[in-house]
Amino acid sequence: MATTESPGGQIGLADLPLRENLRGKKPYGAPQLSVPVQLNTNENPHPPSAALVADVAEAVRDAAASLHRYPDRDAVALRAELAAYVTRQTGVPVTTDNLWAANGSNEILQQLLQAFGGPGRNAMGFTPSYSMHPIISTGTQTTWVDSPRRADFSLDIDAAVAEIRAHEPDVTFVTSPNNPTGHSIPIEDLKVLLAAAPGIVVVDEAYGEFSDAPSAVGLISEFPSKLVVSRTMSKAFAFAGGRLGYLVAAPAVIDAMLLVRLPYHLSVVTQAAARAALRHADETLGSVAELARQRDRVAQKMSELGFTVIPSDANFLLFGTFADQSVTWQHYLDQGVLIRDVGIAGYLRATIGLAAENDVFLEVSERLAATELEGEA
Amino acid sequence: MATTESPGGQIGLADLPLRENLRGKKPYGAPQLSVPVQLNTNENPHPPSAALVADVAEAVRDAAASLHRYPDRDAVALRAELAAYVTRQTGVPVTTDNLWAANGSNEILQQLLQAFGGPGRNAMGFTPSYSMHPIISTGTQTTWVDSPRRADFSLDIDAAVAEIRAHEPDVTFVTSPNNPTGHSIPIEDLKVLLAAAPGIVVVDEAYGEFSDAPSAVGLISEFPSKLVVSRTMSKAFAFAGGRLGYLVAAPAVIDAMLLVRLPYHLSVVTQAAARAALRHADETLGSVAELARQRDRVAQKMSELGFTVIPSDANFLLFGTFADQSVTWQHYLDQGVLIRDVGIAGYLRATIGLAAENDVFLEVSERLAATELEGEA
Repeated sequence: MATTESPGGQIGLADLPLRENLRGKKPYGAPQLSVPVQLNTNENPHPPSAALVADVAEAVRDAAASLHRYPDRDAVALRAELAAYVTRQTGVPVTTDNLWAANGSNEILQQLLQAFGGPGRNAMGFTPSYSMHPIISTGTQTTWVDSPRRADFSLDIDAAVAEIRAHEPDVTFVTSPNNPTGHSIPIEDLKVLLAAAPGIVVVDEAYGEFSDAPSAVGLISEFPSKLVVSRTMSKAFAFAGGRLGYLVAAPAVIDAMLLVRLPYHLSVVTQAAARAALRHADETLGSVAELARQRDRVAQKMSELGFTVIPSDANFLLFGTFADQSVTWQHYLDQGVLIRDVGIAGYLRATIGLAAENDVFLEVSERLAATELEGEA
Repeated sequence: MATTESPGGQIGLADLPLRENLRGKKPYGAPQLSVPVQLNTNENPHPPSAALVADVAEAVRDAAASLHRYPDRDAVALRAELAAYVTRQTGVPVTTDNLWAANGSNEILQQLLQAFGGPGRNAMGFTPSYSMHPIISTGTQTTWVDSPRRADFSLDIDAAVAEIRAHEPDVTFVTSPNNPTGHSIPIEDLKVLLAAAPGIVVVDEAYGEFSDAPSAVGLISEFPSKLVVSRTMSKAFAFAGGRLGYLVAAPAVIDAMLLVRLPYHLSVVTQAAARAALRHADETLGSVAELARQRDRVAQKMSELGFTVIPSDANFLLFGTFADQSVTWQHYLDQGVLIRDVGIAGYLRATIGLAAENDVFLEVSERLAATELEGEA
């Protein structure tokens, strides 16, 4: 990206004393392309209402009067309102002391690994799963242990327990519903994992609101020194641009976060905008049921067209199978539909969009099925 | 902080498998107290203008329409506008490719240490200096090497070079103007350090706009594989609540940041608010000259009162000397003036406030001088 007009543009990455484990790496991230139908990053396709936009703007206007001052370092008001929301949404009463917030769940996960992972420690995940888990583990110098799911991407609990016993992970990641496959973990299975795990178990519920399965938050009193539930306002909440992740755990875990967070990590603007969005929770989450209906419609049609569709409890579908999924990904893109190649051989992931976007996706899929899937058994 | 109503409230920090090096630590941060005169965190005391507040609110209103989508991961528009500002403020033409931004300069420093520090590597600073340098180094598992300044807190360049030769730091921090002492480093001295340093040299110019000394940005073409200049909108820019830190360096350094940043680390709201604030740079930076005048007035008066005042190029003063600075800190607080005990025996740090705030500070100081300093030679 260097240009001759940029001071220092004469050198490249290889000229820098970069850490050895970063050499040759490529930046993470789905291509940010502008196409008519964008179904690649599991965003909620419903734009914020005019009322929400107005509330965010007014809340930021009030907060902006003190932009010259540092924000509340502990974001107490925001955490109290997140606690009220979690209590309402999960049915489990939690308090400000159970809540912690950061700039996206990525920062939540990084803070957890800084406190409970790091050099000489290891983290395990059941893959394929959220690709940031190994990336943030490596970024915090935590050894990553990959524990594979079954061929149909479901989680084999006996195998998982055996892997936990074999590797004794300091941090175990369980994603429910799992991204990119869509499965939720039954609460009874989760209890088995929690009993077996020697360290911290992070249940990543980024897609929790899309699932009817009970939240792991209900298990915090039973497993206070192990269980951390990470969540986000990016998905069901339609607040991906606002970058607000949070965790629910025993108050001691929040004390640990205070030791590793960067001071003043959450701006007055972020705190104000997130609080405004939380005031519109009922309205925003109204889109969740509609997205679940759309998901079931798309899944059924895709099955009828002959695709293999992994059962999903979230706002996306993993489907296949393709001889070379990167060729198929390009095929969708050429027809104006951006989906995600998550690096699973033979499969692609599509986010559930608005009804009209899903119709376009299904039309492209139907034409594809007539040709691509022909040769399959 | 746990309450009995919080699930998991029965356990404490000692019951968690916290990393060994975090055990027994206390969270960083100045007390956030509400007092009439707040001179403890080097904020710019001038509140944002009504025009700036309105612009921030309107920019966020526009941005909020796409809150359901992820932000521009690389914050290109913001970086372009920061480049234009740095070009104007330092007189050194730089481009988008020379700029990187994050949630406060703390996140900038953390990303730098993730790329160039980490386990098995070391970072050096000339102390007393910004206390987050060792904290973030330790947080990224980088070994911290303390290299002391002279007794009058000035930097002994020959001693600094000898320390660099002895420890060969992977990352060397040079703070200019230095927090909490106020000294700037002459550009010729900086060149000597850059020539001696084997790794990355981070020149922390958080208070750069308050100093007449030329910015280190002018040395990037000469030392492209070593020099990184970190800056912030928190201080001169009166944007501490907005949390926007940035760095200026060779484009290859920005490529390195892409490898370690958390994806989508800067929200649409932060990007919009910072861009709005940058449009008001001339007006905001108008306060800088006034603060420099106030600083010189306060410094002169404090010297006349018999205090030892360290010469400052920034928006704060380090002054003493006291038998027990924590007792004197409490004395100021009891009279409604919150200043900072930065942990230097015999000294305290006071931020330069508005004229009336400085008057109160000087009145309290004058009464103090009549009693406390009596016994001194």
